[in-house]
Amino acid sequence: MVREIIVIGSGAAGITAASYARKTDPDAKITVFTEDTDIAYSPCAIPWAVEGKIAWENVVMHTPEHYSEKKNIDVLTQTKADFVDSSAKTVAAGGKTYRYDSLVIATGGKVFIPPINGVGLDGVFAVRTVQDGKRIQSYLRDVKEVAVCGAGTIGLEMASTFLDLGKEVMVIEMMDQVIPRIADKDMADRIQKYLEERGARFVLNAPVQAVIGTGKVRGVTAGDNNYPCEMVIFATGVRANTDIPKQLNFDIGQLGGVIVSPSLQPYRRGRIVPDIFVAGDVIQFESAVMPGPTMSQLGSTAVRQGAVAGANAAGGNAMYGPIASPWVSVIGEKEIAGTGLSLGLASWYGVTAVSGKAEGLTRARYYPGATEMIVKVLADAASHRLIGAQIIAGEGATGRIDWITSAIVSGMTAEDFLVRAENAYCPSTSMVKDVVISAVEDLCGKLK
Amino acid sequence: MVREIIVIGSGAAGITAASYARKTDPDAKITVFTEDTDIAYSPCAIPWAVEGKIAWENVVMHTPEHYSEKKNIDVLTQTKADFVDSSAKTVAAGGKTYRYDSLVIATGGKVFIPPINGVGLDGVFAVRTVQDGKRIQSYLRDVKEVAVCGAGTIGLEMASTFLDLGKEVMVIEMMDQVIPRIADKDMADRIQKYLEERGARFVLNAPVQAVIGTGKVRGVTAGDNNYPCEMVIFATGVRANTDIPKQLNFDIGQLGGVIVSPSLQPYRRGRIVPDIFVAGDVIQFESAVMPGPTMSQLGSTAVRQGAVAGANAAGGNAMYGPIASPWVSVIGEKEIAGTGLSLGLASWYGVTAVSGKAEGLTRARYYPGATEMIVKVLADAASHRLIGAQIIAGEGATGRIDWITSAIVSGMTAEDFLVRAENAYCPSTSMVKDVVISAVEDLCGKLK
Repeated sequence: MVREIIVIGSGAAGITAASYARKTDPDAKITVFTEDTDIAYSPCAIPWAVEGKIAWENVVMHTPEHYSEKKNIDVLTQTKADFVDSSAKTVAAGGKTYRYDSLVIATGGKVFIPPINGVGLDGVFAVRTVQDGKRIQSYLRDVKEVAVCGAGTIGLEMASTFLDLGKEVMVIEMMDQVIPRIADKDMADRIQKYLEERGARFVLNAPVQAVIGTGKVRGVTAGDNNYPCEMVIFATGVRANTDIPKQLNFDIGQLGGVIVSPSLQPYRRGRIVPDIFVAGDVIQFESAVMPGPTMSQLGSTAVRQGAVAGANAAGGNAMYGPIASPWVSVIGEKEIAGTGLSLGLASWYGVTAVSGKAEGLTRARYYPGATEMIVKVLADAASHRLIGAQIIAGEGATGRIDWITSAIVSGMTAEDFLVRAENAYCPSTSMVKDVVISAVEDLCGKLK
Repeated sequence: MVREIIVIGSGAAGITAASYARKTDPDAKITVFTEDTDIAYSPCAIPWAVEGKIAWENVVMHTPEHYSEKKNIDVLTQTKADFVDSSAKTVAAGGKTYRYDSLVIATGGKVFIPPINGVGLDGVFAVRTVQDGKRIQSYLRDVKEVAVCGAGTIGLEMASTFLDLGKEVMVIEMMDQVIPRIADKDMADRIQKYLEERGARFVLNAPVQAVIGTGKVRGVTAGDNNYPCEMVIFATGVRANTDIPKQLNFDIGQLGGVIVSPSLQPYRRGRIVPDIFVAGDVIQFESAVMPGPTMSQLGSTAVRQGAVAGANAAGGNAMYGPIASPWVSVIGEKEIAGTGLSLGLASWYGVTAVSGKAEGLTRARYYPGATEMIVKVLADAASHRLIGAQIIAGEGATGRIDWITSAIVSGMTAEDFLVRAENAYCPSTSMVKDVVISAVEDLCGKLK
């Protein structure tokens, strides 16, 4: 009997699940349903595609035809999965009913747009799909002033894109810093300053209250002030899209995501649900840093979860581990990366954090192209275990944050790290003692 | 009583030791002896300085005056320490005798030049000091053909420099591959091919037998053939400079380096020698990968050892840990980096290694500037522990090799790595699943 596998969702988790299901079971019948028009693209590429640095046709890596021909996977686009019956093992989608042996739910996240007046006006956009991006690019042509609501990484990447395109840019954020939650204020302030130097204006501590205009956008109200603009971008975060999990009565966790086992199976009233796997932005998972849940909502996390869910849906026995969620964002000429807990997240877990910091360069001082690098590392004051880090640099932040992530997930203390950590050195790729090690040295001093 | 600290050697280990001694004891009298003319420079910068990409005055980071004025450290250049009396606690240098309370020996390595005919001819050079580099640069002007003896990283970096300067380049190596010992043949062959495409010729399996010429170089003999050239560069490796340790009857290890404790103190007939610390290219140390000794001879290692030796010489209590020795070399547009054991080193430790490999890109496929990246990872067939890795890429190899190093030194198995490893992702800095993770995935398949 051929195994029938259905995947709901064609984002990073869903498409990877389908591919790994195929790797695990060459004979299975695999069908993917998606509401989207395009599949297998990286939403993270949208800011650069809007700017014209990448062609839209390159953002979309593969077409449904590719999956059909190369992997024998049917991808049905613009086909919403409306209803799942986990007893009958069927999915209702696009007016038809399909049966499954195993099901992967990778419904991702929904852009959160605050329930305020004016969000339906022409000139209001979210940043999630390729279609969103193309509409932004097209509307932008006749626009001088753009307001970006939400100063997270996507918001700031879009702000940087608009500055490059010669627009006047205002960023509105309800918290008292940019990149709230995952970055500390001292690090975030440097990115804000960098964008201010390029001409962006920031309105902090100001929730967006309304979009103003008739027919099309003429301004926004935030923190009781009105700001004129012709276009509004909502980058106010993503909420887990739990419509189907809720309909199936799956247990939802403290952070609003589906609770899953290490095999990525959901629970219903505390019992594992057989034959269903959930992956990507829709789940929450154990933190690798502290006991307790975390929500990653990163493309890289979704891909790794999709691989586990897909393999298991096809009869495999893959396991998923606790996560530290390293991230990196490129904002103009600056890379900002982080991993594990920020000071804010540490306090959420009830941890008292101690921080160390060092400034240096990405290459030897004398080597052309060296850029400034600032590394901040956090440890738990009680155990001295490394719990987080943030880096701002002109290059090379990604590998270094992956390095610190590896130390965090293996439970290393700051002192252990200092004794054991080594860095490869060549004048054109690092300082002889990498700034990461100097930051941990500073941290160890603070922990004494 | 003011503590008197003497440091012998002004390379990465010696100068760092002096600086950390000063940090640890603000009042100590600190004196550094060096045979060299210049101090506090990175020999790793020489290939780029010869090429003119870096000015010589920038390669030398600080002068003796800087150390005297800013750190109250006396650096005596061109002053050879001839003799140490560890009973009287004195050093004879430059015709005078100095007493010490504690002594740091950081005499580094001696360039190994094979004992063959013709090495005294004009046009024969080593690559170790700034003076070597300046002499090479000056002699090079009237030269068309250069032979580089030794295809290690320094030899290939020099070869690439000579190609950039329009010279004809021949590389002579006694082993059957370039970058022997620390790189595997399959990876090294790619670097060889890259240099061949740029015009370099390689003569492998051919020990250099003689330099030919009268007065000045006219050719070399290698593998019983004569090759015409006007200049010969010896990059045939570095041997621990153990003149003083041997004179002091310190125990020398299997690899020819001074054996030291984690406090970096030497042994004499198995007993710790008090008040003396040894650091840098002159020592061997425990491997972090397998039980047994290793020799790092890297600038980054020397700096970390210098910090420990200097702090301890000033009354501190710092400890040095086992080492994996990550390294990176930039050869034209290629970075090649490695860590832990190569196949050859694994066999030296009696380990059966299994390897996994993946090819991909340093950025998202569609992002401008993405370069090819090849990652090879090695595990111990018995325990499945990660024991080594090598990366070739156009960018970003350093941080990634530091990442894998961290996993190796924490004793992670390949399977653990696959469950726990995460990578930060942004289209301009990595693929959504980093090639490192794909390589470990391949490795796990091989280990099954």
